[in-house]
Amino acid sequence: MAGPEVFLPNAREMLDRKIALARSYGFTPVSPGDLTIPETETRYQHGLAISAINESLMSSANLIIANLTPFRGISADVGTVFELGFMCARGCPAFAFSNCAENHFERVSSLHGGDVQLGPDGRHRGPDGLSLENFDMIDNLMLDGSIAARNGTIITRKVAPDQLFLDLTAFEECLNLAAQRLLKTTARA
Amino acid sequence: MAGPEVFLPNAREMLDRKIALARSYGFTPVSPGDLTIPETETRYQHGLAISAINESLMSSANLIIANLTPFRGISADVGTVFELGFMCARGCPAFAFSNCAENHFERVSSLHGGDVQLGPDGRHRGPDGLSLENFDMIDNLMLDGSIAARNGTIITRKVAPDQLFLDLTAFEECLNLAAQRLLKTTARA
Repeated sequence: MAGPEVFLPNAREMLDRKIALARSYGFTPVSPGDLTIPETETRYQHGLAISAINESLMSSANLIIANLTPFRGISADVGTVFELGFMCARGCPAFAFSNCAENHFERVSSLHGGDVQLGPDGRHRGPDGLSLENFDMIDNLMLDGSIAARNGTIITRKVAPDQLFLDLTAFEECLNLAAQRLLKTTARA
Repeated sequence: MAGPEVFLPNAREMLDRKIALARSYGFTPVSPGDLTIPETETRYQHGLAISAINESLMSSANLIIANLTPFRGISADVGTVFELGFMCARGCPAFAFSNCAENHFERVSSLHGGDVQLGPDGRHRGPDGLSLENFDMIDNLMLDGSIAARNGTIITRKVAPDQLFLDLTAFEECLNLAAQRLLKTTARA
């Protein structure tokens, strides 16, 4: 269960809610914070220790549900995205959700206050000259593409602004889809 | 060679400069745009086709150099980060660079105009309540941690604002380090 919940004021509560939901669908969830971080001398070493634990948790998992709700900007939390890439390379089924219903193109357009021009090269660009992806996708095409390639789904939902990182309806929808997939796989095996 | 260069107005020129530099260090580089995208009916399918090609290029590579220069916000481009996670899971050596010398904590603090408070839980939080990572790292700890765990290095450099995505000095430093590593590996084998 990858997501930016670890940064929330009520991180432990949110992680526990996700863990309980995942268990109710028959999964054995792993998420950041599951293991105790060993003592280290420096802050940098502490960061390395958390990273190492998160990598080992990922290596113990065979499915990912990533929270791609835009975090501190127009795209998903990069820690979550790293984990999505990691799990995709491991060949794991990938599901994701976002509590933002606007697509990537719309969010970058909003970032530029709508000042986006279609150039002669067929690309939309903001005033900074950088092109906008225009693929009807939730986020950068590597995210949407990798999930689609693994028969996953990205569930999006519009929620009240103060529920952006608290509403778990879309997460639960991912759990439901993932459980159906796993049951199907088991039935086939 | 992962990075947000594809979004630049002079994308082809920048990719060609990176390709030429990589070749000069003895590498056979792959980067987005190397292959022709097949015709598709919809924009969404076009995005999927690019993603599929990028995944196949990654699967053909055995080393990554990621451009983690902050892109449209405080963190690296999420497409690049996905690729870093993907290559790390494949067990590949990983190097990275950023043309921003401020660390992650400093950038998030700036995003909040310095309005960051140390709470009783030992965490710094902005006015949105979200905690800041404070690990003397370049970006989210999964990025720095994964690169360090693979004996890679993140080269940072302060460049003039208009050179943020154009200055390849730090990229070349990564190439140099990667070439030393590969030569060492070859010598050992």
